[in-house]
Amino acid sequence: MQAVDVIVREVGLRDGLQIHPTFMPTDRKIAWIEAEAAAGVTEIEVTSYVPPKLIPQFVDAEEVTRRALDVRSLTVAALIPNSRGAERGIALGVHKLNFVMSVSRTHNLKNVRREREESVTDFKKIVEMVRTHRAGERAKVVGGLSTALGCSYEGRVPVADVVKYALQLAAAGADEIVVADTVGYADPVQVRTVFKAVMAELDPLPVAAHFHDTRGTGLANVAAALECGVRRFDASLAGLGGCPFAPGASGNIVMDDLCFMLDSMGLRTGVDLEKLLQVRSIVHEALPDIEMHGALARAGLPRNYVRAGEQRAA
Amino acid sequence: MQAVDVIVREVGLRDGLQIHPTFMPTDRKIAWIEAEAAAGVTEIEVTSYVPPKLIPQFVDAEEVTRRALDVRSLTVAALIPNSRGAERGIALGVHKLNFVMSVSRTHNLKNVRREREESVTDFKKIVEMVRTHRAGERAKVVGGLSTALGCSYEGRVPVADVVKYALQLAAAGADEIVVADTVGYADPVQVRTVFKAVMAELDPLPVAAHFHDTRGTGLANVAAALECGVRRFDASLAGLGGCPFAPGASGNIVMDDLCFMLDSMGLRTGVDLEKLLQVRSIVHEALPDIEMHGALARAGLPRNYVRAGEQRAA
Repeated sequence: MQAVDVIVREVGLRDGLQIHPTFMPTDRKIAWIEAEAAAGVTEIEVTSYVPPKLIPQFVDAEEVTRRALDVRSLTVAALIPNSRGAERGIALGVHKLNFVMSVSRTHNLKNVRREREESVTDFKKIVEMVRTHRAGERAKVVGGLSTALGCSYEGRVPVADVVKYALQLAAAGADEIVVADTVGYADPVQVRTVFKAVMAELDPLPVAAHFHDTRGTGLANVAAALECGVRRFDASLAGLGGCPFAPGASGNIVMDDLCFMLDSMGLRTGVDLEKLLQVRSIVHEALPDIEMHGALARAGLPRNYVRAGEQRAA
Repeated sequence: MQAVDVIVREVGLRDGLQIHPTFMPTDRKIAWIEAEAAAGVTEIEVTSYVPPKLIPQFVDAEEVTRRALDVRSLTVAALIPNSRGAERGIALGVHKLNFVMSVSRTHNLKNVRREREESVTDFKKIVEMVRTHRAGERAKVVGGLSTALGCSYEGRVPVADVVKYALQLAAAGADEIVVADTVGYADPVQVRTVFKAVMAELDPLPVAAHFHDTRGTGLANVAAALECGVRRFDASLAGLGGCPFAPGASGNIVMDDLCFMLDSMGLRTGVDLEKLLQVRSIVHEALPDIEMHGALARAGLPRNYVRAGEQRAA
């Protein structure tokens, strides 16, 4: 595998599809995964182990996971809301279990129907399950902190709370912490404050950033997180995602625009920008009514564009 | 006037409208200017003194300027491509003459049909004209450097060339220099490199930033420029502008999203975000077919949003 400076992770198959009313055929999901892996994306959150009754889009979670695991060089991740989800992932041999809880109490109650302390307890149980599982390589367990930069119920979220739950998940045995701006409230100043505080406490545990572009600040927040030393970013192709309560609102930061910005900054992502842009047609053809964002797709690369690897060589 | 930390300047009436095929009625332009001034925007580039034969959108440049000058508290600016444009502006008593030349030779030849040295000579003449004009308060003369962060004909533009022409315009008597990413090629690393170099040479002359969001990096570039000390930014309401060669491509950075990001960062702009968002309907009603961008307009302000002034007070 080639050297990269920043790891970009596709979360569109989970965060992008979970609110979309139309089922994306399993074959199309796999085509998306395979094409994006071929474009150089090395980690994809392929599905969510929530009950299909809650989110029918993930009724094929088992098949998607199995077939994604066949893609060489890909780190296959899946979201788990609780230990029951972890059981499914461990049985499948998924590489990464992306556990999620919210830093704000109200959002955690609404989203996973429990107190934050119960989420932490469940997380400990998941780490224990993974450690005692015998077969195959141990899955990595990721502690995701939703609403870490603002909550649609509570507004601003205290930095101290983000640090508190990050420390609790780290102490429980997380292999990585993800700090998420679930509702797109963050600005660069806030990003620097929160990430500096969390990273100072957790170092050397990897801390990743999950930003939404709901209010246009997504890539500015990436630049701020980069300055803090963050080198792992979630994004979704074409910015799929959005918010069920804000029609037309942008979703996750746009993977294609993220890769362009990083590459242009001289940071190698390992992703071939032209190949990545071509993957958009797979999504568009499968889900013609899904709203797709992205500035690079409309404008194209700058003239005589110099890729990050070539900048290094020059 | 209340204290502000950052000056945001509306350029949509010029940069946003100049490529739009439909004429915006003069009364609607004035309504836009008045409403945005009432929302707290203190500086607007209201028109361009190019020959109306070249851009019919600006056939009403004289009337728009005169009526904009009636708006109390507003700094009225207009683009001038050459000394003939400056004559018109001086006769009207406009506050700011925004001269523009391109750092890249090819773009300057295509855009204003002359060598860069001829542009600099013309700029000297304009400064002289302004200084010798007797009536009223002397207009400020702004030296704008287009394609300073990339050129759609030449690709990357040497930083040394940006510094060179910035110094020449400063030496000629510019009151301010505007560094422009005309075609939206810039990334935050490049922004830091170029603005640091220019500002180190020009200090204490004000240096402003004019970014386009063509490839999604606009607000990230603003954040990078802020770190360099830039405190003057051009933007257009709803990101009007675009590029005639890239259908659907974004134009200038979105004024509404810019003001939100700055305000959220605790930087006072003097702009009332809700009032600013309401101005969009004036543009939409006058030009129903113009493409309007903007994330804040779709998503709304965060819950319990705390304004920059209130952050200071708290």
